[in-house]
Amino acid sequence: MPVRVVGFDGDDTLWHSETRFHVTQGEFHELLERHVPEADADRRLAEMELKNLGIYGYGVKSFTLSMLETAIELTEGQIPASDLKVILGWGKRMLMEPTELLEGVEETLHKLSPSYDLLLITKGDLFDQESKLAQSGLGDLFLGVEILTEKNVDSYRGVFRRRSIQPEDFVMVGNSLRSDVVPVVSLGGHAVHIPYEVTWDHEHVPEEEMPKGGWRRIASIRELPGLLEEL
Amino acid sequence: MPVRVVGFDGDDTLWHSETRFHVTQGEFHELLERHVPEADADRRLAEMELKNLGIYGYGVKSFTLSMLETAIELTEGQIPASDLKVILGWGKRMLMEPTELLEGVEETLHKLSPSYDLLLITKGDLFDQESKLAQSGLGDLFLGVEILTEKNVDSYRGVFRRRSIQPEDFVMVGNSLRSDVVPVVSLGGHAVHIPYEVTWDHEHVPEEEMPKGGWRRIASIRELPGLLEEL
Repeated sequence: MPVRVVGFDGDDTLWHSETRFHVTQGEFHELLERHVPEADADRRLAEMELKNLGIYGYGVKSFTLSMLETAIELTEGQIPASDLKVILGWGKRMLMEPTELLEGVEETLHKLSPSYDLLLITKGDLFDQESKLAQSGLGDLFLGVEILTEKNVDSYRGVFRRRSIQPEDFVMVGNSLRSDVVPVVSLGGHAVHIPYEVTWDHEHVPEEEMPKGGWRRIASIRELPGLLEEL
Repeated sequence: MPVRVVGFDGDDTLWHSETRFHVTQGEFHELLERHVPEADADRRLAEMELKNLGIYGYGVKSFTLSMLETAIELTEGQIPASDLKVILGWGKRMLMEPTELLEGVEETLHKLSPSYDLLLITKGDLFDQESKLAQSGLGDLFLGVEILTEKNVDSYRGVFRRRSIQPEDFVMVGNSLRSDVVPVVSLGGHAVHIPYEVTWDHEHVPEEEMPKGGWRRIASIRELPGLLEEL
């Protein structure tokens, strides 16, 4: 049963994303240090993001709102509005940054697209994700695009149903064990994990909790065409 | 050629939305008046929203970020962070408010769903729109859901293509002339305009610029089943 459909995650699989959050978070840390040197701004921001996830969902706008709330809370309302304006500016900068593809992406997708149906399956903010795809210049290589609020067993099952995909014909490629590998494998599909240099804690799964089979790990997207032929 | 597919806008067609923005905007006006009594906060906020639309897109999170930026600008950075925290709280309140259906919606959709394919075609924030749909309890009545970043000729054409819909078999029902009526009629589809009590300026189209035919206006969704039989 050869794989027919290849799903790709977007952020940190096709284009850089987390490094940007990381850079901004570093700036946030420095800004807060000037006001409350003793505070653990990184941890507090991470907690705020998780607390707000059910209200805001994923994405840069949610991250910006959580940075603002954390800054106000940590300084007990003493931070000047001019500093909060700086934070608003970081959010806009992140949203306006050009999409930067990971090494090997363009070449690999061009190589795969004649032989497989390629889908982009990403989560996050609709507007932001569509902007990134448009900017990436890769739009025409994908047969379809699915932007999900959350990647889990239910949402992948929905994709399979909408697109009449048999799980065994499908492989998901992404950098997140939690979002790209575990739910797909548990539905009977295949998965390929390509770790990114930085991973958001929230996406981490302890190695011992991972399914034993059904997925593989490669170091670069360049290894994908060879691996797909083996599957 | 009887209509086969009925598309419904969500915000202010099926459930209340703009009144909430309106209420929050009133609170924003009052808050700003305490700091800068001479400023035209409403106009400045509307300008800010429009300026940020290409960066943020639609939705409550975008609106919240624009309120914060307007407040900081209008007070020249003098607004205390505690007041900005109040604005953050308004955004969360809007996102957490239960979905409130317009009068007659539930009954009408139940009446139509055995005879027509119903689609929800809405724009805005993916996460927020999916939450509203889930809360509305109407999910099962729709054959499909399309959440678009913008409703225009291109995005409706995409919906028609993805779902193999002939424009002449399709009617779009919504409260916005700009988003629900004009693009659909110009593609050869039908449209039904149901005005809402409050309309965002941005969605307004001068009556004389409206297409002459292809669309009708009704006062309540309750008139829709009768109208569809005439089409």
